[in-house]
Amino acid sequence: MTTVGHFINGEHIADTARCQDVFNPATGGISKQVALASKATVQQAIDAAQAAYPAWRNTPPLKRASIMFKYKELLEANAEKIVAAITEEHGKVLNDAHGEFIRGVEVVEYACGAPELLKGEHSKNVGPAIDSWSEFQPLGVVAGITPFNFPAMVPMWMFPMAIVCGNTFILKPSERDPSCAILLAELLKEAGLPDGVFNVVNGDKEAVDSLLEAPEVHAVSFVGSTPIAEYIYNKGNSAGKRVQALGGAKNHAIVMPDADLDNAVNALMGAAYGSCGERCMAISVAVAVGNDTADTLVAKLKEQLETLKVGPGTDNSNDMGPLITKQHFEKVKGYVDAGEAAGATLVADGRGLVVEGHENGYFLGGTLFDHVSTDMSIYTDEIFGPVLCVVRVENMQEAMDLIDAHEFGNGTCIFTRDGEAARYFTDNIKVGMVGVNVPLPVPVACHSFGGWKRSLFGDLHAYGPDAVRFYTKRKTVTQRWPSGGVRETAQFSFPSNQ
Amino acid sequence: MTTVGHFINGEHIADTARCQDVFNPATGGISKQVALASKATVQQAIDAAQAAYPAWRNTPPLKRASIMFKYKELLEANAEKIVAAITEEHGKVLNDAHGEFIRGVEVVEYACGAPELLKGEHSKNVGPAIDSWSEFQPLGVVAGITPFNFPAMVPMWMFPMAIVCGNTFILKPSERDPSCAILLAELLKEAGLPDGVFNVVNGDKEAVDSLLEAPEVHAVSFVGSTPIAEYIYNKGNSAGKRVQALGGAKNHAIVMPDADLDNAVNALMGAAYGSCGERCMAISVAVAVGNDTADTLVAKLKEQLETLKVGPGTDNSNDMGPLITKQHFEKVKGYVDAGEAAGATLVADGRGLVVEGHENGYFLGGTLFDHVSTDMSIYTDEIFGPVLCVVRVENMQEAMDLIDAHEFGNGTCIFTRDGEAARYFTDNIKVGMVGVNVPLPVPVACHSFGGWKRSLFGDLHAYGPDAVRFYTKRKTVTQRWPSGGVRETAQFSFPSNQ
Amino acid sequence: MTTVGHFINGEHIADTARCQDVFNPATGGISKQVALASKATVQQAIDAAQAAYPAWRNTPPLKRASIMFKYKELLEANAEKIVAAITEEHGKVLNDAHGEFIRGVEVVEYACGAPELLKGEHSKNVGPAIDSWSEFQPLGVVAGITPFNFPAMVPMWMFPMAIVCGNTFILKPSERDPSCAILLAELLKEAGLPDGVFNVVNGDKEAVDSLLEAPEVHAVSFVGSTPIAEYIYNKGNSAGKRVQALGGAKNHAIVMPDADLDNAVNALMGAAYGSCGERCMAISVAVAVGNDTADTLVAKLKEQLETLKVGPGTDNSNDMGPLITKQHFEKVKGYVDAGEAAGATLVADGRGLVVEGHENGYFLGGTLFDHVSTDMSIYTDEIFGPVLCVVRVENMQEAMDLIDAHEFGNGTCIFTRDGEAARYFTDNIKVGMVGVNVPLPVPVACHSFGGWKRSLFGDLHAYGPDAVRFYTKRKTVTQRWPSGGVRETAQFSFPSNQ
Amino acid sequence: MTTVGHFINGEHIADTARCQDVFNPATGGISKQVALASKATVQQAIDAAQAAYPAWRNTPPLKRASIMFKYKELLEANAEKIVAAITEEHGKVLNDAHGEFIRGVEVVEYACGAPELLKGEHSKNVGPAIDSWSEFQPLGVVAGITPFNFPAMVPMWMFPMAIVCGNTFILKPSERDPSCAILLAELLKEAGLPDGVFNVVNGDKEAVDSLLEAPEVHAVSFVGSTPIAEYIYNKGNSAGKRVQALGGAKNHAIVMPDADLDNAVNALMGAAYGSCGERCMAISVAVAVGNDTADTLVAKLKEQLETLKVGPGTDNSNDMGPLITKQHFEKVKGYVDAGEAAGATLVADGRGLVVEGHENGYFLGGTLFDHVSTDMSIYTDEIFGPVLCVVRVENMQEAMDLIDAHEFGNGTCIFTRDGEAARYFTDNIKVGMVGVNVPLPVPVACHSFGGWKRSLFGDLHAYGPDAVRFYTKRKTVTQRWPSGGVRETAQFSFPSNQ
Repeated sequence: MTTVGHFINGEHIADTARCQDVFNPATGGISKQVALASKATVQQAIDAAQAAYPAWRNTPPLKRASIMFKYKELLEANAEKIVAAITEEHGKVLNDAHGEFIRGVEVVEYACGAPELLKGEHSKNVGPAIDSWSEFQPLGVVAGITPFNFPAMVPMWMFPMAIVCGNTFILKPSERDPSCAILLAELLKEAGLPDGVFNVVNGDKEAVDSLLEAPEVHAVSFVGSTPIAEYIYNKGNSAGKRVQALGGAKNHAIVMPDADLDNAVNALMGAAYGSCGERCMAISVAVAVGNDTADTLVAKLKEQLETLKVGPGTDNSNDMGPLITKQHFEKVKGYVDAGEAAGATLVADGRGLVVEGHENGYFLGGTLFDHVSTDMSIYTDEIFGPVLCVVRVENMQEAMDLIDAHEFGNGTCIFTRDGEAARYFTDNIKVGMVGVNVPLPVPVACHSFGGWKRSLFGDLHAYGPDAVRFYTKRKTVTQRWPSGGVRETAQFSFPSNQ
Repeated sequence: MTTVGHFINGEHIADTARCQDVFNPATGGISKQVALASKATVQQAIDAAQAAYPAWRNTPPLKRASIMFKYKELLEANAEKIVAAITEEHGKVLNDAHGEFIRGVEVVEYACGAPELLKGEHSKNVGPAIDSWSEFQPLGVVAGITPFNFPAMVPMWMFPMAIVCGNTFILKPSERDPSCAILLAELLKEAGLPDGVFNVVNGDKEAVDSLLEAPEVHAVSFVGSTPIAEYIYNKGNSAGKRVQALGGAKNHAIVMPDADLDNAVNALMGAAYGSCGERCMAISVAVAVGNDTADTLVAKLKEQLETLKVGPGTDNSNDMGPLITKQHFEKVKGYVDAGEAAGATLVADGRGLVVEGHENGYFLGGTLFDHVSTDMSIYTDEIFGPVLCVVRVENMQEAMDLIDAHEFGNGTCIFTRDGEAARYFTDNIKVGMVGVNVPLPVPVACHSFGGWKRSLFGDLHAYGPDAVRFYTKRKTVTQRWPSGGVRETAQFSFPSNQ
Repeated sequence: MTTVGHFINGEHIADTARCQDVFNPATGGISKQVALASKATVQQAIDAAQAAYPAWRNTPPLKRASIMFKYKELLEANAEKIVAAITEEHGKVLNDAHGEFIRGVEVVEYACGAPELLKGEHSKNVGPAIDSWSEFQPLGVVAGITPFNFPAMVPMWMFPMAIVCGNTFILKPSERDPSCAILLAELLKEAGLPDGVFNVVNGDKEAVDSLLEAPEVHAVSFVGSTPIAEYIYNKGNSAGKRVQALGGAKNHAIVMPDADLDNAVNALMGAAYGSCGERCMAISVAVAVGNDTADTLVAKLKEQLETLKVGPGTDNSNDMGPLITKQHFEKVKGYVDAGEAAGATLVADGRGLVVEGHENGYFLGGTLFDHVSTDMSIYTDEIFGPVLCVVRVENMQEAMDLIDAHEFGNGTCIFTRDGEAARYFTDNIKVGMVGVNVPLPVPVACHSFGGWKRSLFGDLHAYGPDAVRFYTKRKTVTQRWPSGGVRETAQFSFPSNQ
Repeated sequence: MTTVGHFINGEHIADTARCQDVFNPATGGISKQVALASKATVQQAIDAAQAAYPAWRNTPPLKRASIMFKYKELLEANAEKIVAAITEEHGKVLNDAHGEFIRGVEVVEYACGAPELLKGEHSKNVGPAIDSWSEFQPLGVVAGITPFNFPAMVPMWMFPMAIVCGNTFILKPSERDPSCAILLAELLKEAGLPDGVFNVVNGDKEAVDSLLEAPEVHAVSFVGSTPIAEYIYNKGNSAGKRVQALGGAKNHAIVMPDADLDNAVNALMGAAYGSCGERCMAISVAVAVGNDTADTLVAKLKEQLETLKVGPGTDNSNDMGPLITKQHFEKVKGYVDAGEAAGATLVADGRGLVVEGHENGYFLGGTLFDHVSTDMSIYTDEIFGPVLCVVRVENMQEAMDLIDAHEFGNGTCIFTRDGEAARYFTDNIKVGMVGVNVPLPVPVACHSFGGWKRSLFGDLHAYGPDAVRFYTKRKTVTQRWPSGGVRETAQFSFPSNQ
């Protein structure tokens, strides 16, 4: 059986003393093993990154960007392989894996703009013949710790930007789907990235803590659940690092009485059940304004759920694949049980689903609750599964109050035709990423990704312009030149020659 | 005797249950008392700021800026009063106090550009007929905790930017020189700032901790010593706040063999002894490259020190006033003792100084050490007094290695005529603010102030563009409109009217 | 009788060889005379501006901005005097004159941000140890030629930005209302602007041509009618100058069936009749979508027109003052005659209006045409009077086609509640300044003013960010330093000293 | 014999009614023919561009950029073919042709950043609940007219930026080396660019005038000689187009007494003789400060000229190839004759050069004049040949005065080690592109290319940020929404449902 190891200083490194099974969620079978890095292996990666840093730091941004251009080519040429790895280990449908891959590549494209993005600010004559400018210099060695649900995209939110800014990078991907990171590393090397600039260590808490404790690591980007995000943030900060830690979500969509309901329903189906709901931007709560709206909405969702096709991700005709692990499957199922027990109306129940030929896969069908109230665990918790809750309210303000009161503030969305409603919503809602008739308002690569409240710890968001600021430190130079140099003295010394 | 109280919700608040003496450092006498806020008083300020927030947040940036324009006028009209208060409580010479005041006013001027500074990023057609934009929204209630050494400037680094970004603010100034903050608050009210948008609480650790623990406070800016900065940073972060905490410094100036030495000496005199060395940007180490350079440099400094005039700050003919407190005076004197004991050459000794008529003032004369080595406490520690150390090195690389090895990385400077030396230095030195023939490279108001290493905890620097990012959170909106609205339906509904 | 002269090099200059009457449009009486500058006087202004340029160019932007700060204070302190001068010579109601004044002051405020606005772009390491940056340097002497309709605002669109960018300026205001420019000049001097940086020459075509022909004048900003704008643009360009020339307008407002009609009608009343329609952003065509919309719209406008109060601008209870001159009055009246003759429905006729006590004033009442067609001169021409035309169309596309087919493309507006309609309109309409439920979408000072098609000749718009680019030229520096300088040689020369 | 035709709407178009010979300058032989487009063919291109515009305008910038990414790949894959075409028709050495090609590709890379570059400015709350933003919309059909000396690079300065901004493009390349443009067009099509977005018409003045007169063409970018640039600028402007027209140059390099002379001489050799001096950024005047500097400089240049290898561009061991045409060869030779006659010291004379086996090629050897004075035609005129003039001055100010007095202001450079001299020079010199120890300070792709004085007609420079502004027009939207829509009414309509 294959063991996925590490990638350090341009080479595959085994360090297989401790290993863990990697499952195929569509079959429930063990597909391979992943090595869990020891502290020493993490240190080896840090040393490699440290050694590669000075030369990389001095490499012109244009040159760094040229590697990203080549990388984009190679990524596209190897898309099929990467996407297959995602589906095999994560379970999501190939098309969906390809979608994730594309969003990651878009950050690589953005990183190609390094010469523009790294421009400093130049002030002539801040005083008489005194100039000042601010540069944005790299931090040194930085690390990324990424979750299972987007094994390609989330790492690519981080390292392309970190690297073009002149840093060297260590990626600690999820041990559930570790192969993708290794593929990404191999292609970076092939694109011409000097050894040691990008390194992958697979592992568990030991690897994470080793990175957080290492004084050579100057910054950490994390995406995962809120409790771990908070742990990473505080531990990293205390160790003198810059940290951005993105946590959980419970994204609400408001459906207004004037919404184009067919459009809203189509949008919600994808946003709630796509990737089995294992997305931090998934819509898990639909807030219907008015009972008429709610009745129609629920009826239409129910109808569409009847044709939702669930099965192995390798078959693109499926709408949804399995959940990531047996444990997670049980957890999500437990939430459905709890919702039912708490008195929510279970409109569609995904618990009984059996996918023929994949009886041991972690498949749960699309589940819909109506009449959900805010005290139920299906409302308060991030389920990370194919469960959509409908909450009914009387007016838009009530809907917004709900959202603002929730612990998380990652994404949200409103369905309406009304300019005023949209403006009021986007202005006032306490959420970082807001959609108007767009169910998954993931910012494009030239903007930045980040939630509010307990969905993000840190000042700066992921990728986009904020990433440039996160992965660099500002240096401000103030310069004047004393007179009496060659320019002026020359006037006296040379006439005698004539 | 006057007691300096608090300024909350547009009103002077006493809360004088606990008080502390405020000294005049030029005389050693108690000039007034300062009230130390209780937790309840701090909460009163937070409540006022919280209450003022919604309306202030919705006030157009142009309107917010118009108050800053008026504020600038009022500050200038009241300059004399503010400057006198600084000198009385801090001790620095009036001219120097005026200089600090001006640098603060420049941040107010920068804040007047709010409509430009708060522009978001707008992307048309991120997809077909889908637009996206990022706004920079205020955080809510934010706080500033400021040190004794710049009672006007450092608060003004913070609140003008925080306020024009739409936040409401609570200032906790130093209890050593608390009057200035109250004056600043009164003028803001006079400028038209709504009550509760800016509040001052005087106090000690109780006030600080109350601010750090309050869930309603969303961000804290701090300037002070490194140990406290680190405490504030970690405690604030753990409490879910955004924090920027600026700490200590040990700023080195490299003097190259080709430097204009007269210019360098003049510059060093001001940078080392101005404001009695109680500046986080003071030059406290001169690194002379080559013994010839060192010999000349020390001789010229010694000569100038002989005419350095020390006395009460109220007399503008003095170059330097007293230290801030008796305790601090003893501490600085102790460092001079230690330097002598450690074997550094004491070229000029300020310990015996007596200022006639001010025998109880905390006056220490300008002190110069030569042949200082890096293991001496006068080298390793931030003395915050009128003590300049000369370290001798053989070449520029050695000088730079010294600087890079020091715990702090706030400011530094090189004296040279050579373009290549300046470029190499500014590029590679591990310090946040770098001067070329500029001894105190404090960034102008349109850049940002911040050190590296243990001189700053946080991602973003003070004032300037970084302050806009620090005092706002990014919200990204993605918007599409469903078709079939009034634009298209109109084509069908109206012809029949004809 | 007073004669308004010129203001050159900080002094009032008479040059009264040729003069022209200045009328009070509310009475028809001659209120004063204006001197018409000879070529020699214009040259005197150019020489003054040229002489003042080198020192002003080298004045730090912060210093230049500080004069603008002071200028803003003085403008506000002298608002009443300026506003009175506007009303006396132009005729508009005092409140309206004050509104114009405020919009001008806002550009002064924007200009106060010069240190931020003039930042160049700095690129570290465009090659190995090679840096490059772009500066935005001033042009030299530049000129502004401004129209009668905004004697304060339009000059203030130009000179504050030109001046803070480091240029020196010559203003040639309209000879119809020349006093305001002189007041503006006096206050600039009082604010501390060095003599010669800002100069005013009153005059006619001789002055204009002198400016256009002078090789020392590097740029010209113009606002006026399209034929003159085109003349200025071509003549200035041929003479090697940078030119931006803003011309005429015929601004349409689309009223959609879903619009809030009361709001739309209120907005249209102000936009069509405010300042007697003598605004380049006035709405002169309302395009009603659907006959129902049109019928209601016309009825409501008619009703409001019945209470429109016309009289001398000195009385703030008036909604509208007189037209600028007798000739213009006749011209506008002629258009009304022509519209009637062409078959448009004259809903309200302003021709018979007599203002008691001001029988010789140039008063024309608010005029409304319905059923206007695109071949009528009241539709094709810019009338610049209180005449609103209603055109009826069946759907929004037809309305947009109308607008796009018109010669001008200055401003436009749509009244609707529908997000999709607004987005489609703002995206596709061929007009430079677009309002959604905002009838006069004059960009705020931190954006830029400019129309499309034959409403603007030139690449860059007035004020705002474009003004910085217009009033500066880009200089790009690429810098590397040869090795072997003091940094490296020092390693060899100094050890011997030890 | 091959005839190079046109490329319109994705297809090769012949239109060979009028043709002209294309020569191989290394042999003097006719290598092919080029078709000269009729007015009808130009119109065909315009029609194609016009037809392609609406869809291309609405294509998201990310999508447009993705074609540029693919284009970069294809360019690199086809580099050899393009470079060979350049050398065959232009004559320059292959390595040099490859250098030009790379600089062009860098603009393509910059254009890949379209989503970032096209961001508009968004202002929240310009008034209460009123927002405003500025978009940068494409112009429509635009054209580029390019010179013989950079048949790949100069077109690539223009069309990548024009196209990613959403415009459609017509290129009229030089008829001397027309093949490269066709190759560029074929690869764009292969990269996925929709037909009609990029078109090539070969031709002469008829084609140029047809483009300048066509009302559908909204902007023209031109690079060539100053008289033609001025013609294009005025004619284009009069026809209502936006024009940027880059003209001639006479670039001076100042050699200071403290310069690293070996470095300067190496730099000058490449800058003066590379590409046979047929570059608008070539150094054609070296200004030596002091006779000592001059004597050494001339001696070292003379020495290096003795080994300068001249021959066919297909041989990479050559330093320099032939001039472009027989006529141009005669013209350059005439300048050498004139310089000699005028009394300049002819240090090296390239006139007698015979390249064996290429006796009919247009080869002229490297030529060096010393003691050149400013009244000689070799000083005043742009020779565009391998002729370097040394002018001797006494001090730096004199050198700068020379440069500032010259008609052109394209590029310039100083050789020095002194920070103050460099700063004074870059600040004050009246030239658009300035080098410090960099002989050819061509701005990198993220800055913009443009000279001052009669070297550029227009407000905005080529490529880089200025190109975004040149190829777009600003549209500013101001938006408010009337209240009483679905958000508020919903509060009243729905409670009844309960």
